[in-house]
Amino acid sequence: MLTKQDVTDLIYERKRASGLSWARIAEDIGMSEVFVTSACLGMNTLPREKAEALVLNLGLPQEAAVVLSEYPTKVFSQTVPTDPCIYRFYEIIGVYGQTLKELIQEKGGDGIMSAIDFDMSVEKVPYPKGDRIEIRMSGKFLSYNAW
Amino acid sequence: MLTKQDVTDLIYERKRASGLSWARIAEDIGMSEVFVTSACLGMNTLPREKAEALVLNLGLPQEAAVVLSEYPTKVFSQTVPTDPCIYRFYEIIGVYGQTLKELIQEKGGDGIMSAIDFDMSVEKVPYPKGDRIEIRMSGKFLSYNAW
Amino acid sequence: MLTKQDVTDLIYERKRASGLSWARIAEDIGMSEVFVTSACLGMNTLPREKAEALVLNLGLPQEAAVVLSEYPTKVFSQTVPTDPCIYRFYEIIGVYGQTLKELIQEKGGDGIMSAIDFDMSVEKVPYPKGDRIEIRMSGKFLSYNAW
Amino acid sequence: MLTKQDVTDLIYERKRASGLSWARIAEDIGMSEVFVTSACLGMNTLPREKAEALVLNLGLPQEAAVVLSEYPTKVFSQTVPTDPCIYRFYEIIGVYGQTLKELIQEKGGDGIMSAIDFDMSVEKVPYPKGDRIEIRMSGKFLSYNAW
Amino acid sequence: MLTKQDVTDLIYERKRASGLSWARIAEDIGMSEVFVTSACLGMNTLPREKAEALVLNLGLPQEAAVVLSEYPTKVFSQTVPTDPCIYRFYEIIGVYGQTLKELIQEKGGDGIMSAIDFDMSVEKVPYPKGDRIEIRMSGKFLSYNAW
Amino acid sequence: MLTKQDVTDLIYERKRASGLSWARIAEDIGMSEVFVTSACLGMNTLPREKAEALVLNLGLPQEAAVVLSEYPTKVFSQTVPTDPCIYRFYEIIGVYGQTLKELIQEKGGDGIMSAIDFDMSVEKVPYPKGDRIEIRMSGKFLSYNAW
Amino acid sequence: MLTKQDVTDLIYERKRASGLSWARIAEDIGMSEVFVTSACLGMNTLPREKAEALVLNLGLPQEAAVVLSEYPTKVFSQTVPTDPCIYRFYEIIGVYGQTLKELIQEKGGDGIMSAIDFDMSVEKVPYPKGDRIEIRMSGKFLSYNAW
Amino acid sequence: MLTKQDVTDLIYERKRASGLSWARIAEDIGMSEVFVTSACLGMNTLPREKAEALVLNLGLPQEAAVVLSEYPTKVFSQTVPTDPCIYRFYEIIGVYGQTLKELIQEKGGDGIMSAIDFDMSVEKVPYPKGDRIEIRMSGKFLSYNAW
Amino acid sequence: MLTKQDVTDLIYERKRASGLSWARIAEDIGMSEVFVTSACLGMNTLPREKAEALVLNLGLPQEAAVVLSEYPTKVFSQTVPTDPCIYRFYEIIGVYGQTLKELIQEKGGDGIMSAIDFDMSVEKVPYPKGDRIEIRMSGKFLSYNAW
Amino acid sequence: MLTKQDVTDLIYERKRASGLSWARIAEDIGMSEVFVTSACLGMNTLPREKAEALVLNLGLPQEAAVVLSEYPTKVFSQTVPTDPCIYRFYEIIGVYGQTLKELIQEKGGDGIMSAIDFDMSVEKVPYPKGDRIEIRMSGKFLSYNAW
Repeated sequence: MLTKQDVTDLIYERKRASGLSWARIAEDIGMSEVFVTSACLGMNTLPREKAEALVLNLGLPQEAAVVLSEYPTKVFSQTVPTDPCIYRFYEIIGVYGQTLKELIQEKGGDGIMSAIDFDMSVEKVPYPKGDRIEIRMSGKFLSYNAW
Repeated sequence: MLTKQDVTDLIYERKRASGLSWARIAEDIGMSEVFVTSACLGMNTLPREKAEALVLNLGLPQEAAVVLSEYPTKVFSQTVPTDPCIYRFYEIIGVYGQTLKELIQEKGGDGIMSAIDFDMSVEKVPYPKGDRIEIRMSGKFLSYNAW
Repeated sequence: MLTKQDVTDLIYERKRASGLSWARIAEDIGMSEVFVTSACLGMNTLPREKAEALVLNLGLPQEAAVVLSEYPTKVFSQTVPTDPCIYRFYEIIGVYGQTLKELIQEKGGDGIMSAIDFDMSVEKVPYPKGDRIEIRMSGKFLSYNAW
Repeated sequence: MLTKQDVTDLIYERKRASGLSWARIAEDIGMSEVFVTSACLGMNTLPREKAEALVLNLGLPQEAAVVLSEYPTKVFSQTVPTDPCIYRFYEIIGVYGQTLKELIQEKGGDGIMSAIDFDMSVEKVPYPKGDRIEIRMSGKFLSYNAW
Repeated sequence: MLTKQDVTDLIYERKRASGLSWARIAEDIGMSEVFVTSACLGMNTLPREKAEALVLNLGLPQEAAVVLSEYPTKVFSQTVPTDPCIYRFYEIIGVYGQTLKELIQEKGGDGIMSAIDFDMSVEKVPYPKGDRIEIRMSGKFLSYNAW
Repeated sequence: MLTKQDVTDLIYERKRASGLSWARIAEDIGMSEVFVTSACLGMNTLPREKAEALVLNLGLPQEAAVVLSEYPTKVFSQTVPTDPCIYRFYEIIGVYGQTLKELIQEKGGDGIMSAIDFDMSVEKVPYPKGDRIEIRMSGKFLSYNAW
Repeated sequence: MLTKQDVTDLIYERKRASGLSWARIAEDIGMSEVFVTSACLGMNTLPREKAEALVLNLGLPQEAAVVLSEYPTKVFSQTVPTDPCIYRFYEIIGVYGQTLKELIQEKGGDGIMSAIDFDMSVEKVPYPKGDRIEIRMSGKFLSYNAW
Repeated sequence: MLTKQDVTDLIYERKRASGLSWARIAEDIGMSEVFVTSACLGMNTLPREKAEALVLNLGLPQEAAVVLSEYPTKVFSQTVPTDPCIYRFYEIIGVYGQTLKELIQEKGGDGIMSAIDFDMSVEKVPYPKGDRIEIRMSGKFLSYNAW
Repeated sequence: MLTKQDVTDLIYERKRASGLSWARIAEDIGMSEVFVTSACLGMNTLPREKAEALVLNLGLPQEAAVVLSEYPTKVFSQTVPTDPCIYRFYEIIGVYGQTLKELIQEKGGDGIMSAIDFDMSVEKVPYPKGDRIEIRMSGKFLSYNAW
Repeated sequence: MLTKQDVTDLIYERKRASGLSWARIAEDIGMSEVFVTSACLGMNTLPREKAEALVLNLGLPQEAAVVLSEYPTKVFSQTVPTDPCIYRFYEIIGVYGQTLKELIQEKGGDGIMSAIDFDMSVEKVPYPKGDRIEIRMSGKFLSYNAW
């Protein structure tokens, strides 16, 4: 029985062999690159017909489409990530976490930004002083209940 | 001798008494609300003249301007934040961290988004299905050195 | 400046002196006992007029009403709670967590139960073989976004 | 020798192949879906005759019935669960743990809710503002001994 | 307002001044020494009349009796205890924990020994090869529910 | 080369196949059930002739007797055990650890109960209000050296 | 009421003022320097008459003698010590721990070296290639019980 | 390619089969038993000719001599060791660590005992009140640099 | 599909067989020994043509060149390294970390030394009192943004 | 009695008031800025006459010179430092630790770089592409003992 990890390994293998980018893999099934990449890494669920298209495009076994559309148990095993590219985001949350809370609640009242009804994009933007990475996150504002 | 924590406490006190928002405090010294809030919470350094303006506006003691322009040691004591509003961001990094790495490196080569040459904004945006919080982060792309 | 902790201490003091129950304190301001208790312990926000009523009923200083209606930073310092009464709930989540996930997703698709748009009750119910505690939790079902 | 984990893997395999729900698997042996799911995941003990029925219904090897009725060592390896659906329950215990303790003890005296003489249900309930998940937990009240 | 810790400190002070043993303090109020000691250390609840007797015997302030009969939040801050006398018990649980589980379940079926409906004694017993400490623990057997 | 874990697995296999209890396995070699169980789980050393008898009784390979009489490295990998039956003992040490220390030292002076020159028994005892589990631990009292 | 920590602080104060060495403080009461130092740091119990002599010699308040002869709860708060001088010993145990176990058990059978019936010395010894520190530890060999 | 762990496993196998002691294995190559044992456990480097002699004596494959003379990465995976024989040394460092520091620095000035230019012995010594284990450690005294 | 770990293992194997040093391996492809070693250990990315040269020189399979030029996820699994040679650097950061921060910020203003636009060298230098290891690190100074 | 922390606080106070740099404070007593800063932060020992000069220069109380020349217990409380400027060094050790070990041992044989017989410098160096921070560390090479 194929696991999520098996399918991720197969995708990396096809990616290395074919030279396809995540951007292209996502575009070919008509979804965003952040979402498709996260689903290929086993952290999100592809709608079944999207999974089938992806499996067809990459030449993966049919069972992979079932696996890609199953609901993952999202496990991140490093409490503090060590890869520098990922750690910087952890650091940003550490440094600006209380600030984000102050401003979200100043704007919306007692509540949070949802991480479930959520989307995100990543872009590289050229600037005179050097290219910048721009991240945009958008999540539904959820108010705490009082009862 | 006033510490960063003392100054943060004083600012919260004046904020509660005056009803001023972070947005207003920031606007009154001509800087962004994310940056000013983080500096007031002891996580960033205000330029000296901005610190003096803020101190004047809030009626803080003169020494507070010195403190606000000193370089903080950024300590975040919770390895995993427990406040739900902050935890959701930690969760996003856990779930999408590897995805962010894949896409940043696909777009820029081996490197990272800087958390130092960095800025961020927070907005609440109305949507038919409910308001959304939108976060925009921008950091310089830094390439790994090979030597 | 009164902190959330100061107000919690004051409430415990008045409770000990007056013998009032949480049930009574909550009923007197027309809200549920779970919510009011959690707000008195600094883990939720009372609506301002409810906070003023509570402060009046318990004879607390006026500033306490402001504090009770401010948005708390929810910090729980024990990663694994040690008090037996609280640990048992931690254990239930450990033993049944994956089961809850399987069933919530079987019933609703890929998603979660919200802990924000959420309410809860606690009752003691008599049974022939001994009284039972019954907890009822209700949270909005939130679907993961695909984009 | 089959282990609990082997049997769980076999059940997932049959579930994927047959499309059976946990609700149906449980109903077919006349037990609740929470309990049967937890036993299939290796976290509870099925009575022997129930185990045999389940093994028959799913077409598992005979030895699986022995395994399902052995007493598991309940190991949950993540001190803080990372899957969002499970984490929300951990968060609820963190935020409301002391509140639960206050109310259980106000109602029953010094004691706890048992996690052993315990049952639980999960339902999805439609509401105008969106479906809700409702959890009901029931555990025997146990008084501390004084001696 | 006196806290549990304040009362523990007062009791240690009176114990040092008076030279009274825990055995004597317990006997004077007609309860066991394990239970009374644990209550004096803030880990159990004395019945109100016992608390009043103890307060009288030790010459503590009246409020201490209220505190001793309040329900404690049992916090043990060292996950692994470092004092050698306490560590040895932690080690015993580490070395013999699975053995205890095997034998309790062999004798009683799937279940546990309660730590709530529980009592314990400690004795020093002379032996030719050297005195021994004998601990006796007794807890109600609780069967897991199947439903 | 057989490891301790291999031998434990073989014993579980024979136990499942034969239906023998730990009590019977121990009695057949004339030792206590706590000690024999712990040795079978790899946490103690059987005297060589006892190991040979056990191997004969259970029909294990000859090498198993060598392994059972080798000195184990006692590793318990969960700092806080999660199985409820084992956790309750951890909780008892947490709640009563300081009490045990006070009473052992009141009775014997500055010292500890040995966990090496140590024995233990587990019984289930019928009581009108429900069966109880009774644990008896006995360890040599060891005085601290002053020099 | 003086605590162990208070007495340690007083001793450091007198040591700084008087320039007395630990060697001299120990010699003046006729005990070893390791034991006396550890007792002064709150990690061992001085016999009462030794405590009184020490208190007299250093000019400490009379109550300090009571405190020095009370049984300490030995708490070491750093799981991994950070001071280089102490860390090196931790490292030695990490690197040579399994070796020590192999050799102690080869020489004495299944058992351990006691840390309770234990003494230790520290010397600086001149060598041509540079002075060496020599530590000698001696603890009673304790055999595991089989029963 | 043989790893350090493979070689350790082979040595244990030959030791069990041949009944050779560590003392004998060490003596046969003319080195101390502590050092040779630690090298066989993968925690030190044997000089090449010693490694060849040991490999010859134990009948190991030739490649093992290469492996035994490679420089190990010293990994000890348990931050706090659980085996009682090893834990007691950890406890000694916890209880006496600050004492060791005080005395080493009183004798030598600001500095430490080296754990690199270091040797150690373990002996069992008969005493009327019972055998004792005696550990002798010797490490070069290293002074902190001031510059 | 070869992983980074597979390639590292192959390189160690060829190194052991050929006796080549890291210095020589690096020199043969015209890059520094620190960078090449770190890339061979899976912690950096070799430029593709350098990877091909290295693969040719060491006689590795062609796929290894692809792997060596892929971007690694940098995982270091020990939060506190235990190998003494690596630990000493951890200790230096612990002891001098705040000092480094004070001096970097005194010289450059609020900012940091980049670990990305970074290079390093390691040399052994002979001195009369004994050889010394000299590490040189160089990283771009990055100023915090104010906005 | 002044503690190391008290003296550090006093030095920060004088530094803020006087505007003196660490470079100047160090130069005025004829020592390096890294060493003097670390001693002022309580992480090293100033020679007594240097301590007296520094105390005179900064106008500190006389007792501060005694404190500055006492041997500190070096405690760093964050296992993983959170301040970005300090974290980057931790990251460098994580990423390059094994590389440093390989190269130090290739150059010197089995051994380490001392962190005790050690010195360090920090410089800011102008470069066309932006200023760089250059760190130089130098520690004595220590060979492991074989015995």
